[in-house]
Amino acid sequence: MPMPEISEKGIQMPASPIRKLTPYADRAKREGKKVYHLNIGQPDIATPEGMLNAIKQIDFDVWAYTPSEGTLSYRNKLTEYYNKLGYNIAPEDILVTVGGSEAITIAMQTCVNEGDEIIIPEPFYANYNGFACMSNVVVKPILSYIENGFALPPITAFEQLITAKTKAIIICNPNNPTGYLYSKEELDALKQLCLKYDLFLFSDEAYREFCYDGREFISPMHLDGLDENVVVLDTLSKRYSACGARLGCIITKNKKVIGSALKFAQARLSPGMVEQIAGTAAVDTPDSYFEAVNKEYTLRRNTLVSRLNAIDGVFCPNPGGAFYVVARFPVDDADAFCQWILESFAHGGETVMMAPATGFYSSPGSGKNEVRMAYVLNIDDLNKAMDCLEIALQQYPGRTIA
Amino acid sequence: MPMPEISEKGIQMPASPIRKLTPYADRAKREGKKVYHLNIGQPDIATPEGMLNAIKQIDFDVWAYTPSEGTLSYRNKLTEYYNKLGYNIAPEDILVTVGGSEAITIAMQTCVNEGDEIIIPEPFYANYNGFACMSNVVVKPILSYIENGFALPPITAFEQLITAKTKAIIICNPNNPTGYLYSKEELDALKQLCLKYDLFLFSDEAYREFCYDGREFISPMHLDGLDENVVVLDTLSKRYSACGARLGCIITKNKKVIGSALKFAQARLSPGMVEQIAGTAAVDTPDSYFEAVNKEYTLRRNTLVSRLNAIDGVFCPNPGGAFYVVARFPVDDADAFCQWILESFAHGGETVMMAPATGFYSSPGSGKNEVRMAYVLNIDDLNKAMDCLEIALQQYPGRTIA
Repeated sequence: MPMPEISEKGIQMPASPIRKLTPYADRAKREGKKVYHLNIGQPDIATPEGMLNAIKQIDFDVWAYTPSEGTLSYRNKLTEYYNKLGYNIAPEDILVTVGGSEAITIAMQTCVNEGDEIIIPEPFYANYNGFACMSNVVVKPILSYIENGFALPPITAFEQLITAKTKAIIICNPNNPTGYLYSKEELDALKQLCLKYDLFLFSDEAYREFCYDGREFISPMHLDGLDENVVVLDTLSKRYSACGARLGCIITKNKKVIGSALKFAQARLSPGMVEQIAGTAAVDTPDSYFEAVNKEYTLRRNTLVSRLNAIDGVFCPNPGGAFYVVARFPVDDADAFCQWILESFAHGGETVMMAPATGFYSSPGSGKNEVRMAYVLNIDDLNKAMDCLEIALQQYPGRTIA
Repeated sequence: MPMPEISEKGIQMPASPIRKLTPYADRAKREGKKVYHLNIGQPDIATPEGMLNAIKQIDFDVWAYTPSEGTLSYRNKLTEYYNKLGYNIAPEDILVTVGGSEAITIAMQTCVNEGDEIIIPEPFYANYNGFACMSNVVVKPILSYIENGFALPPITAFEQLITAKTKAIIICNPNNPTGYLYSKEELDALKQLCLKYDLFLFSDEAYREFCYDGREFISPMHLDGLDENVVVLDTLSKRYSACGARLGCIITKNKKVIGSALKFAQARLSPGMVEQIAGTAAVDTPDSYFEAVNKEYTLRRNTLVSRLNAIDGVFCPNPGGAFYVVARFPVDDADAFCQWILESFAHGGETVMMAPATGFYSSPGSGKNEVRMAYVLNIDDLNKAMDCLEIALQQYPGRTIA
C-alpha cells in the first residue's frame, strides 16, 4: 500500500549521540545493574530556592502569552545580570528564547544562508549538527587536540577553512564537551579573524558560571569593536540547574540581527511565562549559591581527573571550566568499549554509562579512543564509577596497551 | 565599515501581521485612548484552577530535563484525554512539543522536502507562512470564500493545485481565522484526496474544544484507513487558556513520522517540565469548566456576529467554532481602515484594534476588505468595541457604500 514518505531532512537528522547507548543502559538496569550516568549534562545540583519559590508563588489567573521577545521585566533583570559581567547591553539587545537550543537555531537561521558554512572547533556540542541540519547550514569542523587540552586551534588553521561561504564561527566557552576555557589571547585572535573576514562570532556561554582555579571567564562581549559580529547564545539550564525550564536568550548589539531574530520569535509567539517569572527571581540568586556549586564541581573535577589519570593508559586534561572532560582511553574503539561496559561488565553489580567522543566530532575517524564524561554525580558515586571504569579497562578484551 | 550580513531567510521571514498595527495602537494609548483588542487570540478566560494549583504545588529540587518526547506520565494522561475523544492512540503515538508552534515546524520539517508544497485553504493562520519559510516549504493557498462562510473549497480545486511536489494539506479545524468547523463530509472528501495522491493531512486542532450550537467536532483521527496520513498538531494554549505554557504535541500513528520527529525533538532536548506537570493536571479539568467557557463564547459570538451584521454594509458569517470571525467591511482597504481607526478615530475616548485579513491570505489582493476579530473580550467590552466600529465605519472617508 502506498503511503506518504517522510522528508530527506527527516531521514538525515542526526540522532542524539548521547542517547545512542540508552537501550544498553536500559537493559543493564533491567538485569539489576546499577548504572552511573556520566553520559548526560543533567546536574544533580539543586535549583536555587528563590527560583522554585517564584514558581510556587505565581499569582495570575490567565496563563497568557508574553511578548515574543520576552517580558520587559525579565529583560530588564537580565540586563542587570549581564551588565554586572560587563556586557554593557540594554534590554532591547536581548531576545528571550525557548532554551539555548532555540537561541542557536534562530541565530543560525538569522545569520547564515542556506548552504553557507560555520566553522566550529571540534569536538563540539553534538546538537550543533542537528540545528545545522534543520537550518541547512554546513558545519566545517576544525580539529582541536587532547594533547594541549583542546585549546583553540591556530588561527592559520581557521584561515585555511575560510571560503566565500564562511559566515560564522561558533565557540562554546567554557567548552562542552572538553571543558576548555578560552583565554583572552585566543578570543582576541578570533576577534581579528572575524573582523578580517566579516564573520559572525557565535558565543555559546551555557557554562559561563563554571570556571575553576580562580580563572576568569572572558566573553567576546568584553572585546571592543566587535559589537556587530558577536551573538551570545545563553541558557539558564546549567547556571541555575534549571535544564527543564527551557529558557535561554540571544544577546547581540547588531540591530539587524536582533530585528530579524525577532521575526523568527514572533512566528512561535512566545517563550514560557512561568519560566520568565522564575528567571527574573533567579537573577537575585545569592553569590553563596554559586560559590558552593563551584566548590563542589572543583572537587568533582579534581577527583575525576586524578582518578582517570591514575588509570594505566588513560589521559585526561584538567579543564578550566564547564562540568565535562574528554579523556583518552587505551582502547581502539570507544564506542565499542562504552557499549561493552554496559552490556558485558559489572563490578559489584555496578557499571557506568559514558558518551563516546565520536558523537562530538564530525571529521570521520576522530576521537575514536576518546570518551566524554559529565561530572554531575556526587563524589562518592563518582569514585564508585571510577572503580568500575578502572577494572573494566583492565578486563576489556579490546584494550590496546598491555 | 564592513559588517557581517544577515541571511536571506532572515530578510524573507514574514513579520507577524497581527502585530503590524501595534505601533498605532501604542500611540493611541499614549494619547489616552482606550483600545479594545480584538486583534489577537489571547483569551481572557481563567486557566483551570487545577492547572494553576499543580504549578503552585511543584515538589522537586532539580528543575530537570524531561525525555525529549515528553514524560511518560504526561503522555499517558494525554492518551486518556485523546481516547475519550475516540482517537484510539497509545502514548508512543504522541510527541510533546513546545507549543503548537513547534508541532507545526517539526511536522513540516519531518514530512515535507525542501521546495515541496503544502496546500492550505486560505485565509489561514498567518504563522504557517513563517514556519514554511523556516522549513523551506512552499505554501500553495486555495481560496475559500466568505459567501459560504469559508467552507472547504471544492476537491476539484485542490486537484488542480496538486503536482508531483505536493506533500501535504493543512487544515485548521475549527478554523483560525474564519471560525469555520469542517463537516464529516468535507473531511471524508479530504481523506479520499490524501489517499489518492499519498498526501499527509496535517490537522491543526488548537480550537477543538470550541464548537457551538451543539455541533460535533470531527477529526481526521476519526476516519478509518487514514492512519499513515494524519498528523494532528495540538496545543494546550486555547483549550485551557494557557497560551503562556508553550505546550503542545504531535499525534500520529505513522511510525516513520513519529520516529523522525523525535530526532528533531532530541536536538532541542526537552519540552518544559513544569508545563508537563500542569498539563497532566489539566486533563482532569471538570466538564463544567468547558461548559461555562463554551456558553460564554457562544454568547460572545452571537453578540459579535449580530452586531456586525446590523452595521450597514458589513457581512459576517456565523461560524461554528473557535473564537474568531472574518467579516467583510464596506471599505476598499481594510489595512488602511484598521490603521485609521487607531490613528484618527475615537468614540468617547475609545477605539478598536483589529487584524486586517490580508495577513491571513497569501494570494495577492485577496481579503482586502475583510478583517479578523477575536472575541476574547467580555460582552460589555465587545459591545463597546462594536459601538466604536459602527460609528467609525460611518465616519471613515474610505467607505465604499454610501
